[in-house]
Amino acid sequence: MLDPVIVHQLSAIVGNDNITTEKHDLICYGYDATQMEFLPSAVVHPANALETAAVLKLANQHKFPVFPRGAGSGFTGGSLPKSGGVVLVTTRMNRILRIDTENLIAEVEPGVITEDFQKEVEKLGLFYPPDPASLKFSTLGGNVAENAGGPRCVKYGVTRDFVMGLEIVLPTGEIIRTGTETYKAVVGYDLTRLLCGSEGTLGVITSITFKLLPLPDAKKTMLTIFDSIDGAARAVSTIIGNKIIPTTLEFMDYSTLQCVERRFNLGVPPEGRAVLLIEVDGDKDLIEKQADRIHDLIRPLGLVHFRAAKDAAESEALWKVRRLVSPSLRDVNPDKMNEDIVVPRSKVPDIIREIEKIQQKYDIPIVNFGHAGDGNIHVNVMINKEIPGQEEKANSAIREIFQATLDLHGTLSGEHGVGLAKQPFIEMELNPSQIAVMQSIKLALDPNNILNPGKIFPWKEFSDAA
Amino acid sequence: MLDPVIVHQLSAIVGNDNITTEKHDLICYGYDATQMEFLPSAVVHPANALETAAVLKLANQHKFPVFPRGAGSGFTGGSLPKSGGVVLVTTRMNRILRIDTENLIAEVEPGVITEDFQKEVEKLGLFYPPDPASLKFSTLGGNVAENAGGPRCVKYGVTRDFVMGLEIVLPTGEIIRTGTETYKAVVGYDLTRLLCGSEGTLGVITSITFKLLPLPDAKKTMLTIFDSIDGAARAVSTIIGNKIIPTTLEFMDYSTLQCVERRFNLGVPPEGRAVLLIEVDGDKDLIEKQADRIHDLIRPLGLVHFRAAKDAAESEALWKVRRLVSPSLRDVNPDKMNEDIVVPRSKVPDIIREIEKIQQKYDIPIVNFGHAGDGNIHVNVMINKEIPGQEEKANSAIREIFQATLDLHGTLSGEHGVGLAKQPFIEMELNPSQIAVMQSIKLALDPNNILNPGKIFPWKEFSDAA
Repeated sequence: MLDPVIVHQLSAIVGNDNITTEKHDLICYGYDATQMEFLPSAVVHPANALETAAVLKLANQHKFPVFPRGAGSGFTGGSLPKSGGVVLVTTRMNRILRIDTENLIAEVEPGVITEDFQKEVEKLGLFYPPDPASLKFSTLGGNVAENAGGPRCVKYGVTRDFVMGLEIVLPTGEIIRTGTETYKAVVGYDLTRLLCGSEGTLGVITSITFKLLPLPDAKKTMLTIFDSIDGAARAVSTIIGNKIIPTTLEFMDYSTLQCVERRFNLGVPPEGRAVLLIEVDGDKDLIEKQADRIHDLIRPLGLVHFRAAKDAAESEALWKVRRLVSPSLRDVNPDKMNEDIVVPRSKVPDIIREIEKIQQKYDIPIVNFGHAGDGNIHVNVMINKEIPGQEEKANSAIREIFQATLDLHGTLSGEHGVGLAKQPFIEMELNPSQIAVMQSIKLALDPNNILNPGKIFPWKEFSDAA
Repeated sequence: MLDPVIVHQLSAIVGNDNITTEKHDLICYGYDATQMEFLPSAVVHPANALETAAVLKLANQHKFPVFPRGAGSGFTGGSLPKSGGVVLVTTRMNRILRIDTENLIAEVEPGVITEDFQKEVEKLGLFYPPDPASLKFSTLGGNVAENAGGPRCVKYGVTRDFVMGLEIVLPTGEIIRTGTETYKAVVGYDLTRLLCGSEGTLGVITSITFKLLPLPDAKKTMLTIFDSIDGAARAVSTIIGNKIIPTTLEFMDYSTLQCVERRFNLGVPPEGRAVLLIEVDGDKDLIEKQADRIHDLIRPLGLVHFRAAKDAAESEALWKVRRLVSPSLRDVNPDKMNEDIVVPRSKVPDIIREIEKIQQKYDIPIVNFGHAGDGNIHVNVMINKEIPGQEEKANSAIREIFQATLDLHGTLSGEHGVGLAKQPFIEMELNPSQIAVMQSIKLALDPNNILNPGKIFPWKEFSDAA
């Protein structure tokens, strides 16, 4: 519990209407897309960087933790108030400050919804590619803090690749700008990219300067089904090896395909074992040529179905298949443990084979889909938590999947971050020297461990502020 | 001077053949592309990360500074042994360790020459775009340490955008890996990008994992001359605004044009005031279409000359014009003070106008060329150091150019870094809070200030190790 004097001081900073201490309200800010829940002592909604800075200065003075939060759509508990304290919500800072069509730059506040921003820039013929699945509700501040990805990243890169500069409130309460409005810039350390993916532990983002691209003229979507995982995987390497980098190369394994087919009866050929949803974008003539070339290239690889959308409506129908995946999965089992491992592109068949073995060993359904173009696979361990022991079995299976991923030179997370959910596994990927360097940076910027404490790393001697 | 016992210990680490303490040898490692010179006490050439680590551990034990150095081609003194101590040369670590054509990844040691690497990957149909002017002799380790750029960055991004992971020896001597072999990766802080552009102050790079691209099918080069700077600048915005992002958009102002014309008599029309050398690459048919479209788009902008290369030989002839710039400049005055400011693309005409005013005020020839596509202008203040007072006048002019750049939301350096040369100016761009955060990271990783001390920041209380 926070001292009433502190609550009073927080009210003075953000205004009485922008602080919550009632339990039924607090509950709403203690969960995210994981099933973890924690109760904060207060929730504040600052209007700007100055109020954010005042909250953090107060926190340093009285040593209470502050947990920055956007839409709370994270998959790893990164924004959750693990040790009580104050949740600092950025959603009031939700203005698009400017879109500079001459220099292809936009500046936004952190609370802007990703899709809202995309729609605004597209009205002006511009393009912000990163497209996390949560884009209809996630905030851009959260996207930067987690370095969000999405299907289009295989061609365009991740959120980090579009961040040119930030305004941040440091854990100690100073407001600084990082980066510049120019893409080339080498004066001092690259704090901008250090903040990207730092999961709200090194600063509260209060403004973001994004790089934009010209909106591609046209796109073309193709649904392709192969008689083996290897065929689909070879299709990915073959397409890229032939100098075509598609916008998306979305993969679904046989289990995923069965889930979708069972519900929606798409007419998948019985020999279909793996799906690739391929999209190319760019010059109208070029993409027609690329689509034909892709068809020729993948035909010998066990292709059993190929459908190219003729127009936007058909394209939308094909994408529907991809979007039906998540709702369909719960037919298998009610509870989903969702991981987002990455392996080098060529290792996708190997990791799928390893996962099949692990699935058989533990006798738990595992459903895989994701972004084959960059080797980023969403591994969904489908369990029924009401069956005793199943969650523990699933955790053992996940640990084995992570080990197989690392053995193939992969990483435990491509998009979701570590937060709390993957913290028990981080030492599988990072050794003590790597963790020590990262923690030393955290402590250099946040000597009182005020900002989002207890996340990412295994904090041993250094206990959380309370 | 180093204690002979330390010299002996260094010899034991790298072998007698790989340490130098003779003055005539030391001189060779005390300069770079600036005109600054310092004398180190010893030069070591470690064979690998382990030897590098041993040198740094010894340095921490005996508190002598270590200055990592690649080819010594830097423009800001970043590798110079300002306070004596040991220069650590990475050029023996010069192997391309692997090129993975399936995953479009390469792993190299830091001493590989940039162009050698480019040629090797191109043999396999792959592409490493960053192309600093020094590519024939600069090393990839130096490119990463400085986050090198080049003409092609407008389309493809800078060195940082191609670095997926590093092996580094920390200032304290631990060897760690950063990043992964996958492009998406969000486990822990992004040490990889923190190291890019940190100018050898946070770690010695002993291996680099690069992302590669498929080599574009074809390219098309166009020499275009405009009757005004504004015309050339509007050409840049117009081309990009019409969804064509050229590979290069190289700019030369009137003074540059005159220098080149005087020596090489290219037949520039008398009304020519600014050059854009434009290149597009990609699909063979698409680039022909883009070249035609570019011609149509720029025709109304005061275009007085347009020449598109028909083949590789003609393309090479057009690029020769660009490469003649540097040798031609010294006709104006023997000594060149070379800056590399960046402004937002649309502000190029504004900064050129400001520079003209400053040139008139100080009565010193200033010649501008560079990468107009990303607003990165090489400002060359041409002086004769034998004329008393001219260097001081040039320094005042440069300070005014920097201020004008910052007023236009630009940055003092796009490619060259800060090193020693721009250190007196860094406080014009970064405020004390920004510098304090950066210095706190330096001290967290290098508590004894062993590695490349005294660079980038104004080190006040914190004096150099001796």
